[in-house]
Amino acid sequence: MKVKRSERLIDMTHYLVEHPRKLVPLTFFADRFQSAKSSISEDLVIVKESFKLRGVGTLQTVSGAAGGVKYIPGIKRKQAEELIDTLREHVSHSDRLLPGGYLYLTDILGDIHLMNHIGKLFAAAFADQDIDVIMTVATKGIGIAHAVARYLGVPVVVVRRDSKVTEGSTVSINYVSGSSKRIQTMLLSKRSLAQGSRVLIVDDFMRAGGTAAGMKSLLDEFSATVAGIGIFIESEYREEHLVDDYISLLKLAGVDEKDKTIRVTTGNYFDQVQSFLSTNE
Amino acid sequence: MKVKRSERLIDMTHYLVEHPRKLVPLTFFADRFQSAKSSISEDLVIVKESFKLRGVGTLQTVSGAAGGVKYIPGIKRKQAEELIDTLREHVSHSDRLLPGGYLYLTDILGDIHLMNHIGKLFAAAFADQDIDVIMTVATKGIGIAHAVARYLGVPVVVVRRDSKVTEGSTVSINYVSGSSKRIQTMLLSKRSLAQGSRVLIVDDFMRAGGTAAGMKSLLDEFSATVAGIGIFIESEYREEHLVDDYISLLKLAGVDEKDKTIRVTTGNYFDQVQSFLSTNE
Repeated sequence: MKVKRSERLIDMTHYLVEHPRKLVPLTFFADRFQSAKSSISEDLVIVKESFKLRGVGTLQTVSGAAGGVKYIPGIKRKQAEELIDTLREHVSHSDRLLPGGYLYLTDILGDIHLMNHIGKLFAAAFADQDIDVIMTVATKGIGIAHAVARYLGVPVVVVRRDSKVTEGSTVSINYVSGSSKRIQTMLLSKRSLAQGSRVLIVDDFMRAGGTAAGMKSLLDEFSATVAGIGIFIESEYREEHLVDDYISLLKLAGVDEKDKTIRVTTGNYFDQVQSFLSTNE
Repeated sequence: MKVKRSERLIDMTHYLVEHPRKLVPLTFFADRFQSAKSSISEDLVIVKESFKLRGVGTLQTVSGAAGGVKYIPGIKRKQAEELIDTLREHVSHSDRLLPGGYLYLTDILGDIHLMNHIGKLFAAAFADQDIDVIMTVATKGIGIAHAVARYLGVPVVVVRRDSKVTEGSTVSINYVSGSSKRIQTMLLSKRSLAQGSRVLIVDDFMRAGGTAAGMKSLLDEFSATVAGIGIFIESEYREEHLVDDYISLLKLAGVDEKDKTIRVTTGNYFDQVQSFLSTNE
């Protein structure tokens, strides 16, 4: 049964959004809808225009026998500003302040809509990079890692602090936490990362950058490359960071325990990211 | 500027899929597209038909002043069988066998496409339930919890084995692990769960059910209710389970360490779940 254009557009949109950065041959859609490749091409032009206009992303067309279409999630600059602003408001609530000046972030890291925002922002930031896998450290970064992975269509690997029998053989390293100067251990299951992988490191919080630097040394053990580092909240830090090539969404500029105020600004996101969708709406 | 139907359908699909189980007023779309509500209603009929036909879910229409449309993710029985079969194949690979008869599942739990399968299957299984939040225990269940949460549009809370300063005050319980009979502790941040919440518990693996039973007692402390229990893989267990009202996708029927074979069957999913999308394609 041939399928009407309206239904094709709906199903294509759903399929592409569920399979970001995957090359989908035109024949896949032609077979799925029993339609001519020329009709599918016309459909894709309509989807492409709509995605661009609404700030969903771009459709890359790859021509030739092995060709097809690839959905690359993206965002307009204005949308990115709004999303970061929403995140900033959530983080700034004074009732997040815990004894010792720590911030309670657990609810944010469990909020699926805010995680989607973070995923979209980092996917747009690293849209031009070849990324094979997202890496984070247990436990709090895992939600962020899955959100980013979903928009980039790649798997997640989780670095742990402790060894578990269900991880099989592991590679472990010792590293010095940047702010407390304590020696800590992190480990990664040997078979969870292929040699030579290009890895995007993500984490919820960074102060001196010791954990991120630790993950970088761990990657050396796997002959893997760092494709980028994405941090949800970086903290004001007077000394030199242990990593310098990171992108942060927010910056914790100051905490006043007595007045119960938290000062949060935008991180270095807009200094680092230039590739936004055009806004000729 | 008025927006063409084709573009409306594409954007509506994207919006609804990103906001499952959220009541979206027709005026939201009417404003967004500067279109008459009657046109929006017609669009939604087309989207509804397509979602049903392709096994994406149903659109519920709520009439009246506070009315609108709600996208409920769903699945056809045949699709569910295919997804569970895919998962079964992945789990059955003999190279997953670790010393002691344990299974290496880390790659599966980090595979975003397989997590989407699991999310879709559990969202369909619990489509008729009122669910406020998904709960799991750190670390391995977190990816599953986020996948399910994304299809149900609710937040995730993570139970931990150890206390962290960034969790604020916590409620902890002791429980007896079912198979090893050891006393263990689990704790949940006090402010992460509202009194009276309806909670869907998910986990990657269940043997005797001690961890799930532990989470149930923890919920009592919050006067919260169990809306359901979703287990990725249950293990063959000769004695009575400590929880009995769970839905499992797979069942580990046997492991032979000498022959290096793993026998995996379908869990109780199809015994427990009846509400599939109709298949009159």
